Amino acid sequence: MSSSTSDVIAIALAAMLALGTATQLSAQSEPLSARESDPKVMGWMQGFPPPPDKLITQPDSNYFSFPKLRWSVCHLREFLPTEEISRGLGAPVPLPYPSPAEFAALAREIDALTFTPLNASEAMTWEESLYANYTDGMLILHKGQVVYERYFGCLEEGGKHAIMSMTKSITGLLGEILVAEGVLDDTALVRDVIPEIGDSAFATATVRQVMDMTTGVQYSEDYSDPNADIWLYSRAASPLPKAADYSGPDGYWEYLQQVPPDGEHGEAFHYKTINSDMLGWIISRVTGEAVTDLASDRLWTRMGAEQDAYQTVDGKGVPFAGGGVTAGLRDLGRLGQVMLDRGEINGQRLFPAEVVETIAAGGDPSKFAGFPTIPNGSYTSQWWVFHNDHGAYAARGVHGQTIYVDPTAEMVLVRLASFPRAQNGFIDPTSLPAYQAVAEYLMAR
Amino acid sequence: MSSSTSDVIAIALAAMLALGTATQLSAQSEPLSARESDPKVMGWMQGFPPPPDKLITQPDSNYFSFPKLRWSVCHLREFLPTEEISRGLGAPVPLPYPSPAEFAALAREIDALTFTPLNASEAMTWEESLYANYTDGMLILHKGQVVYERYFGCLEEGGKHAIMSMTKSITGLLGEILVAEGVLDDTALVRDVIPEIGDSAFATATVRQVMDMTTGVQYSEDYSDPNADIWLYSRAASPLPKAADYSGPDGYWEYLQQVPPDGEHGEAFHYKTINSDMLGWIISRVTGEAVTDLASDRLWTRMGAEQDAYQTVDGKGVPFAGGGVTAGLRDLGRLGQVMLDRGEINGQRLFPAEVVETIAAGGDPSKFAGFPTIPNGSYTSQWWVFHNDHGAYAARGVHGQTIYVDPTAEMVLVRLASFPRAQNGFIDPTSLPAYQAVAEYLMAR
Repeated sequence: MSSSTSDVIAIALAAMLALGTATQLSAQSEPLSARESDPKVMGWMQGFPPPPDKLITQPDSNYFSFPKLRWSVCHLREFLPTEEISRGLGAPVPLPYPSPAEFAALAREIDALTFTPLNASEAMTWEESLYANYTDGMLILHKGQVVYERYFGCLEEGGKHAIMSMTKSITGLLGEILVAEGVLDDTALVRDVIPEIGDSAFATATVRQVMDMTTGVQYSEDYSDPNADIWLYSRAASPLPKAADYSGPDGYWEYLQQVPPDGEHGEAFHYKTINSDMLGWIISRVTGEAVTDLASDRLWTRMGAEQDAYQTVDGKGVPFAGGGVTAGLRDLGRLGQVMLDRGEINGQRLFPAEVVETIAAGGDPSKFAGFPTIPNGSYTSQWWVFHNDHGAYAARGVHGQTIYVDPTAEMVLVRLASFPRAQNGFIDPTSLPAYQAVAEYLMAR
Repeated sequence: MSSSTSDVIAIALAAMLALGTATQLSAQSEPLSARESDPKVMGWMQGFPPPPDKLITQPDSNYFSFPKLRWSVCHLREFLPTEEISRGLGAPVPLPYPSPAEFAALAREIDALTFTPLNASEAMTWEESLYANYTDGMLILHKGQVVYERYFGCLEEGGKHAIMSMTKSITGLLGEILVAEGVLDDTALVRDVIPEIGDSAFATATVRQVMDMTTGVQYSEDYSDPNADIWLYSRAASPLPKAADYSGPDGYWEYLQQVPPDGEHGEAFHYKTINSDMLGWIISRVTGEAVTDLASDRLWTRMGAEQDAYQTVDGKGVPFAGGGVTAGLRDLGRLGQVMLDRGEINGQRLFPAEVVETIAAGGDPSKFAGFPTIPNGSYTSQWWVFHNDHGAYAARGVHGQTIYVDPTAEMVLVRLASFPRAQNGFIDPTSLPAYQAVAEYLMAR
């Protein structure tokens, strides 16, 4: 394989790996609107076969760029090898709903809610925000009951959507469960858990520093730099055969064995995806299970899930613990509800309450910087903690994915989206105040 | 991509495409036994990471050769892009079982049944045949109730297994349903359904000839010939980016557009996988649905399935209608039960009874030759019909896959396996008489 073919895949994978950072909210030319870029309107992959200009294929380097990504976020398994996160074989436990009349009345009231976006002067309605954010799915649970549910674009009730870096939060949750159970020592050094990490900068970090992304490890995601680490990581991760002249790391784990240092461990939070894959490796080493199987055993089979989820894998079958999961909207709602209810769902305890307490308490905001839309935040066990009045925390993924848990309002909100730009900093202004508005509405209900 | 890298994948795909023919039952050196080659014994993919000599990867051209295939048959999605055949979101309908005591007693009695393999003089027990056939899963339903169920090798209750050319029988069943419903005219010429089939030899075949594989189309599977059609088909089908110098067909459907003639349509049965993909294309054209979605709508969501199935796709997302499905053992049992009960399951009718009547009646055995273990057989709508005393018919796939329906004994038997050699002709001698023995046992029960 020539390096150019390899690069085609690396580019697409790199797009999937993209950071959630947004230190600059720069302007750019106006993209197609949510309605204009709806994949059904665009006609992607319609027809047997689709016309050539409507085909989206793996060899196409643009399959994960806007507007094609609005189709691809629901179809990753058609491009890449994957592993299943099984829900098991039993009956799903349906989420509770109000009566149809009450549900419709709630939808009307929530759609009409108004809020003022960050850095804006004009108010916007909730429903307008769904289109502004290129929403594909929106689910809101209040006190465990579904109070709002809508599908757009490529997503439908029986479909699944890439959750991008929300994958990290599943990995982090599994790690925190293992810590609470005494299976994983978060004060241990990585090299004590995985001796073959060798001279990698990860060797001397603690498991906790990996979980909280306060390691001092080099990992650049400057897409304009052809030598940026993101490219090497993407090439290592590609499940395609390596080029004959390729001599770099093969797979996520070989990459982690050669990471140079960058700063001191423990000094500051740096959002770097390689920490999540390091944590995934640690988890598999101490449990003897792939993160997919562990997510199935500990979460999907025990929360009444209605769909299997799946996770992309590298060329050696290692799941992408930093961003590879695709799942159903309501199952992500179940996961959020487990968090809100501190480890319980359907009358069953899945893990100790302290797991959620540790995550929700957050870390030291003084170590956290670079996210203007989360000014007082922190990042703990791969979850974003807002340190706001409601004690909210969230899983977040590029292009607008979120599971937002508001313990004060007893609200869980899941948004799946295909926003044209990757960084959530562009989407937060019309999202975070909207979540606060609906939380306040539900509290006053 | 160099053609050598492309060939690596083509070889693996070709292995998956392998024919069910066995005109010669030649001897070969003794392979590892079923117990010796158990993937858990071999240690494939154990450890995080596995040792290099225990890794099975997509770039590894041997991933679908014995003994590695004993692991790979349960893990195809980890190598290849796939599409889901959704079971839907509701509760599965459990299959009925006898009491545990009765189930265990049945197991003991069935295991001890004896039969004489074809062309043999010494008898063998049922249980011995399971190992002789490298069985991964065996399920027997009698009058709709599970009377026997065992898992071996890579398969377990919650797992899935490649069903190889049994995929064809799903495609054929969907085609027959559409014929019965008047959506598909089986007397039409292919070119009238798909005008862009152009000058392909398929153009002048009828839909029925495609369904029954009596077309006169060139398709050679002589693996020793580097110019055999199987290689071109496998290269066309590979989901990997094509080599820069590749100028052949891209995907299953482009391949079908350039098939040369070989003999006259309608004269004789020739087992050629390209017919199944031709039928898949016809089905998608007349329904506007991918075969995966149609299998979900018509079968998986309506038979109480407990697991989603999935199907491998080419580089354009077209499901491999001739061999790409992976599914759970019990769901294949449900499918067999639907056939036995002529379109009904769980008190619901899925399709008209005439669909099964057409298939079970079989075709003209005088057009059928080349399968010494099925001397009086025929092939109708992609199902094998034995024309034996019990009116049995079957779906069959290489390396020992079968759904065997015996209407006289009211028995459905599903075997999933990873026999070292592809052709069922090698496995039939210890299988077909065993099925007859268990059928007679159940009838006398």
